[in-house]
Amino acid sequence: SVSNCLSMMPRRIHGKGDGRLMRWKCECSYDGTDYFGWQCQPGQVSVQSKLQGALERVFKDSVSIHGSGRTDAGVHALGQVFHFDREWRHGPAPLLRALETSLPRSIRVLNAVEVGDDFHARFSAKTKRYRYRLFLGSASPFDWDYCWSVSEWLDINLMGDAIGRFVGEHDFAGFAANRGEEYESTVRRMDLARIVQRDGFLDLEFEANGFMYKMVRSLAGALVNVGLGRMKLDEFDRVLDSGKRSPLVLVAPAQGLFLEKVFY
Amino acid sequence: SVSNCLSMMPRRIHGKGDGRLMRWKCECSYDGTDYFGWQCQPGQVSVQSKLQGALERVFKDSVSIHGSGRTDAGVHALGQVFHFDREWRHGPAPLLRALETSLPRSIRVLNAVEVGDDFHARFSAKTKRYRYRLFLGSASPFDWDYCWSVSEWLDINLMGDAIGRFVGEHDFAGFAANRGEEYESTVRRMDLARIVQRDGFLDLEFEANGFMYKMVRSLAGALVNVGLGRMKLDEFDRVLDSGKRSPLVLVAPAQGLFLEKVFY
Repeated sequence: SVSNCLSMMPRRIHGKGDGRLMRWKCECSYDGTDYFGWQCQPGQVSVQSKLQGALERVFKDSVSIHGSGRTDAGVHALGQVFHFDREWRHGPAPLLRALETSLPRSIRVLNAVEVGDDFHARFSAKTKRYRYRLFLGSASPFDWDYCWSVSEWLDINLMGDAIGRFVGEHDFAGFAANRGEEYESTVRRMDLARIVQRDGFLDLEFEANGFMYKMVRSLAGALVNVGLGRMKLDEFDRVLDSGKRSPLVLVAPAQGLFLEKVFY
Repeated sequence: SVSNCLSMMPRRIHGKGDGRLMRWKCECSYDGTDYFGWQCQPGQVSVQSKLQGALERVFKDSVSIHGSGRTDAGVHALGQVFHFDREWRHGPAPLLRALETSLPRSIRVLNAVEVGDDFHARFSAKTKRYRYRLFLGSASPFDWDYCWSVSEWLDINLMGDAIGRFVGEHDFAGFAANRGEEYESTVRRMDLARIVQRDGFLDLEFEANGFMYKMVRSLAGALVNVGLGRMKLDEFDRVLDSGKRSPLVLVAPAQGLFLEKVFY
């Protein structure tokens, strides 16, 4: 058996006769509760390692997949995207059926399309949409792992005022956790930032051309502190304008976060 | 520490000064996925043992609870009811808060009311309502543990025709699993049996004055076999009229079943 987590260079497949690479773009959904995040980690069960293991069983060979980006432990996805390079002549439906048999129920590959070899799940992404789900009160046993329960009173109007300020191009350095990563730039363009009431939950939705580490959870944490009256709007503006982090920018818990869709 | 699963006789509490028993009726909700059912079982984690453990921490004494009935491993509850006898002078809200702190997130006590000592969670119940949840297709990673995914085509009209035949008084012996229990009678009065489309699911709803072991799952299994065309309506009628089990009365998987409400 081949380790599922070795990073491999895509190999050119010569089966087509024309020397072209056969590249598959897949969209997948997962319940992140029981996973140590997307990314392969030594000694941990990750979504990526499960997907690679399933593909390995289908292709009888190691398969390296490339995701649009990482999600942390406990974070969910409705439409994460990854790509891999393997020759497959039977069309998407049998591939999806084979993967469904081989994957745990908490991970589902929703669709697979053949794409050109200039497509890259991470580098070709134009924007991503995230949803951070709040429950006003104490969530039911069935919803606990899929939202952040906030029992104290939230001023939703004030949160709606604050969230609108994220839209546009900003230096989001004050809303990103530093994990020793060097970002070329901490400026991102936020195309959408809104609050939606849905199915009894309060969803904070964000779409941007890029998100830094723990950025959505920091946006959500700051907004909840605004709603609680702990973070005043001028303090909020100061963080957004200066790029300097504030202790009031708390990182909201992972289980409320969903990667909703990646746009190409 | 006192074993949580000892069955104890209710004790008369003399704190009130009038020698009356103080009895609490509680409604609770639980995600049954990780439990070995409601009932205490040696060496297994059950919902009842978790509730008794939480009450033991609140009352610093062993507490024996009496449920309206058992649910099997993997079966969920939206409104299971139990009672227990303990003096508590601080009202329901602090009791619920103390229990919430002490219980795992997969179990929630929704309310607590003081009742007379002639109330019994099991024997005072007039009817119970169950919901069996089907998903037409393959359920998402988030729904997998909360429904039965049926990918083959179902004739829902035919199922609607069949389910209506359960209403009224019938000998349901053909729809109960025998676990060596002696039932005084296998006749039950079904007050409601219908199919409801809800949130993208197909819910089979049943309300009756009593349910036998695995009865709802047998009703659901038979109905799915009707929908698949495997069980003809005359075979279905034969089981309902004769009380004789048929191999086509399959027991539907536990994870689709919800105890919705107990009526008193």
